[in-house]
Amino acid sequence: MDKVQYSTSVKDINQNYVEAQYAVRGLVPSTAAKIQEEIKNGKQYPFESITELNIGNPQTFGQKPISFNRSILASMLDPSILQHQSEDVQRRVKHYCDKIGFQIGAYSQSPGYPVVREAIANFIQKRDGTVEKPNINDILLTDGASAGITLMFNLLLKDNKDGVMIPIPQYPLYSAVITQCGAQQIPYYLVEEKGWSAEQTELEAQYEKAKQNGITPKILVCINPGNPTGQVFDKKSIVEMIQFASEKKIVIFADEVYQENIYVENKKFISFRKVALELNLNVEIYSFHSISKGITGECGLRGGYMEITTKVDPDVHFQIHKSKTVMLCSNTIGQLMTGLMVTPPTKEEGCNDLTIQQYNEECRALFSSLQRRAAIVTQFLNETKGVSCQPIEGAMYAFPKIELSEKFIQFAKEQNQEPDVVYCLDLLKETGLVVVPGSGFLQYPGTYHFRMTILILPEERLLAKMKIFKEWHETYMSKFQ
Amino acid sequence: MDKVQYSTSVKDINQNYVEAQYAVRGLVPSTAAKIQEEIKNGKQYPFESITELNIGNPQTFGQKPISFNRSILASMLDPSILQHQSEDVQRRVKHYCDKIGFQIGAYSQSPGYPVVREAIANFIQKRDGTVEKPNINDILLTDGASAGITLMFNLLLKDNKDGVMIPIPQYPLYSAVITQCGAQQIPYYLVEEKGWSAEQTELEAQYEKAKQNGITPKILVCINPGNPTGQVFDKKSIVEMIQFASEKKIVIFADEVYQENIYVENKKFISFRKVALELNLNVEIYSFHSISKGITGECGLRGGYMEITTKVDPDVHFQIHKSKTVMLCSNTIGQLMTGLMVTPPTKEEGCNDLTIQQYNEECRALFSSLQRRAAIVTQFLNETKGVSCQPIEGAMYAFPKIELSEKFIQFAKEQNQEPDVVYCLDLLKETGLVVVPGSGFLQYPGTYHFRMTILILPEERLLAKMKIFKEWHETYMSKFQ
Ligand SMILES: Cc1ncc(COP(=O)(O)O)c(C=O)c1O
Ligand SMILES: Cc1ncc(COP(=O)(O)O)c(C=O)c1O
Repeated sequence: MDKVQYSTSVKDINQNYVEAQYAVRGLVPSTAAKIQEEIKNGKQYPFESITELNIGNPQTFGQKPISFNRSILASMLDPSILQHQSEDVQRRVKHYCDKIGFQIGAYSQSPGYPVVREAIANFIQKRDGTVEKPNINDILLTDGASAGITLMFNLLLKDNKDGVMIPIPQYPLYSAVITQCGAQQIPYYLVEEKGWSAEQTELEAQYEKAKQNGITPKILVCINPGNPTGQVFDKKSIVEMIQFASEKKIVIFADEVYQENIYVENKKFISFRKVALELNLNVEIYSFHSISKGITGECGLRGGYMEITTKVDPDVHFQIHKSKTVMLCSNTIGQLMTGLMVTPPTKEEGCNDLTIQQYNEECRALFSSLQRRAAIVTQFLNETKGVSCQPIEGAMYAFPKIELSEKFIQFAKEQNQEPDVVYCLDLLKETGLVVVPGSGFLQYPGTYHFRMTILILPEERLLAKMKIFKEWHETYMSKFQ
Repeated sequence: MDKVQYSTSVKDINQNYVEAQYAVRGLVPSTAAKIQEEIKNGKQYPFESITELNIGNPQTFGQKPISFNRSILASMLDPSILQHQSEDVQRRVKHYCDKIGFQIGAYSQSPGYPVVREAIANFIQKRDGTVEKPNINDILLTDGASAGITLMFNLLLKDNKDGVMIPIPQYPLYSAVITQCGAQQIPYYLVEEKGWSAEQTELEAQYEKAKQNGITPKILVCINPGNPTGQVFDKKSIVEMIQFASEKKIVIFADEVYQENIYVENKKFISFRKVALELNLNVEIYSFHSISKGITGECGLRGGYMEITTKVDPDVHFQIHKSKTVMLCSNTIGQLMTGLMVTPPTKEEGCNDLTIQQYNEECRALFSSLQRRAAIVTQFLNETKGVSCQPIEGAMYAFPKIELSEKFIQFAKEQNQEPDVVYCLDLLKETGLVVVPGSGFLQYPGTYHFRMTILILPEERLLAKMKIFKEWHETYMSKFQ
């Protein structure tokens, strides 16, 4: 048979897209999917099924959604069941329907339902304890935080001389979208030994280096709490980052999707908005939030918002709104879930104690389980020979450092693979655990890591998997002494 | 007070985004929103509220969603209500949950749930009556057709020498996204007098002209049924377009979101896929479908799919899937609704007659109302002096031609506005009817049009509005004799 002549080959298409990599769903996870398929077809592996620790996807492990929220969404979709719902659910459904009608199947306004954006404005004001309340025109609802971040990169990055300062290690969405936009990554390294801190001197040094290379730093990305690193920034760090951005006249993207996921007593969430208002500096900050994380955990519904937290040029403001219209609107179920995330049932609303109690109980149980799991994972990793892990202060991941011997590195080179990739592939093939190689998040040259989520449920299963990991690691590594 | 110095102004951002225009939500609709606000605040207008005919958004006029579909989605979100649903709903919920678990709050596989993609493959095979059945790896679920189209433009368009052949008039998503990608529009004019036909000679001429201007035509966009034009292509037209694309080695985007919206006896929907299979030519075709239109009408839920309908280079295939992973997955409610759209309840599935009857009744009522409304609008427009409208064979819009006198055109020029924009703004201010100027869709130079949807309900209200339009138009135009 002749070779088919395709009119379009990879060389004919957008090279920025070809170059972009997204490790969370990269080689290791795709190998895992193949293995799962093989197991289904009868092939034998030393485990029964794969365990997906590659992606922060709580409900795959049976994490339950908050039932109050779900009852409301269900009733908005099918009003005929409203009679079977509690009075408190009915009242909230009425509240939304008074504003938007039973019309969740209609396109909404492009920036999203005003009723939800109003609820978010109240939430932000209360969270930050500020006199100022956000204007709803500064809040845009998005299909997950990813969509907001992507839109803003596409809009703000002008050409291939523009650069984005990203923390290393970073969440791979950033490197992927910057590459797709044809812009430049400017890495700033978080200092692992100091609990993944962001250092002023490092920001300065990388900024200067970029400038010298003819790159214009345009955006500083701050992920707080950190993914994959799990640190929570203290106020001093945030002040430094804002001062830096203000001085250099660069924009801040504050990725605050894990704001509810803080597990340590001595840290609390401080928003970039709050600090910026206190400092009263001239600086442009966009903040991103999501229903995928926190205790809401509704990844699949794709909801979230972006907030223009400080004054921006009105013409730029207009361009943001205009660009949002092209995709018509973000999905209405995700919009409503975003509203629900920031509007718990309360007495003032008229809810009865039972509703409030059940809601709080569900949230508390979920949160404290996450907190325990963060501790379990940190402890096991640090007890594993040749592995060390900074405290998981927040978010949903561990990003342990693994010591790899020269012999191992040589072994990997012979396979033409990154050492951490070889490590993760072997971990997968021998235990079924799917984790993401540190190189997917970028890491300090010569260091090796992987990222795993802390999301396995029930907790005994997590314990069991951590034991499997510990044993595997020590045996595996002993072969490369 | 000093003027604030913003670090980012419009000249610093992506000029392609700045240039992009999206008329469906452009000047006229935004003026309408302002008027609506003014009315709320007590300002007097010669109408009580605005009537949004600018956007194909059926549920804003009270179009009911299909209840079977909604009951299933609601039960997936809140399984506690499942007991109150019919057996047939319960069975279908079980079918989905057996495949994906009660996990719609989890990220799905990036291309979407396999169970839904399998259902789509069956639907396509049956619709086209082909021996071949699509492979589910060639089907990707998207947040509305918009997301699929946008992804594919971003991926396939390489640089500012690449061009896309778009029908004029076109759906403004196309011009907007092509501009955002920094690529070139290559217009091919549909021939209004021949019912908005696509002519081989025109395709050839525009192709050559683009080539002479140093542009490489890469993609041919075909919208069938047409938006805003409402025509349905016959087989001969489709054959010609495919032959043209095959000869020139350019890719076809077949926008088939209105495939269920065909109102005339003598036309039926023929997919580009079906014709391509018959012709057996070497050509690459991507087809897009959506839950927003048809009789499903679920715009707000954002669901749809793209199909790689013909063989493409495996490396390009890989890049499509990889690019899709960056946004994690499309929203799961939209995914399920896409599955529901292509899987009506049947006897084979075990459904009882009542369920099937009710479902069919809802669909039939909705369809025949749309059909009647298409006829009402066409008739009224053609009875209006100085207005002519091609038959609305399909989709949801009329795109009438309006004759504007020299005096009127002069009048518009004095206001520094396109004549059709002035016309639409005055129509809005004097009647509350919101329609989109033809210039937003592009139109043959020297001709003027506007687009209005046929979606008003109940039908008496549509009749009343059409009368208002007719009277307004004739009075208004008489001033510019
Ligand atoms: C730091 C960070 N930002 C953004 C996202 C995007 O999440 P989503 O698009 O689901 O809101 C994630 C998801 O894992 C994340 O970890
Ligand atoms: C021709 C055409 N294509 C695509 C779309 C996009 O629709 P959606 O993104 O809601 O699926 C529309 C919406 O009006 C349309 O008219």
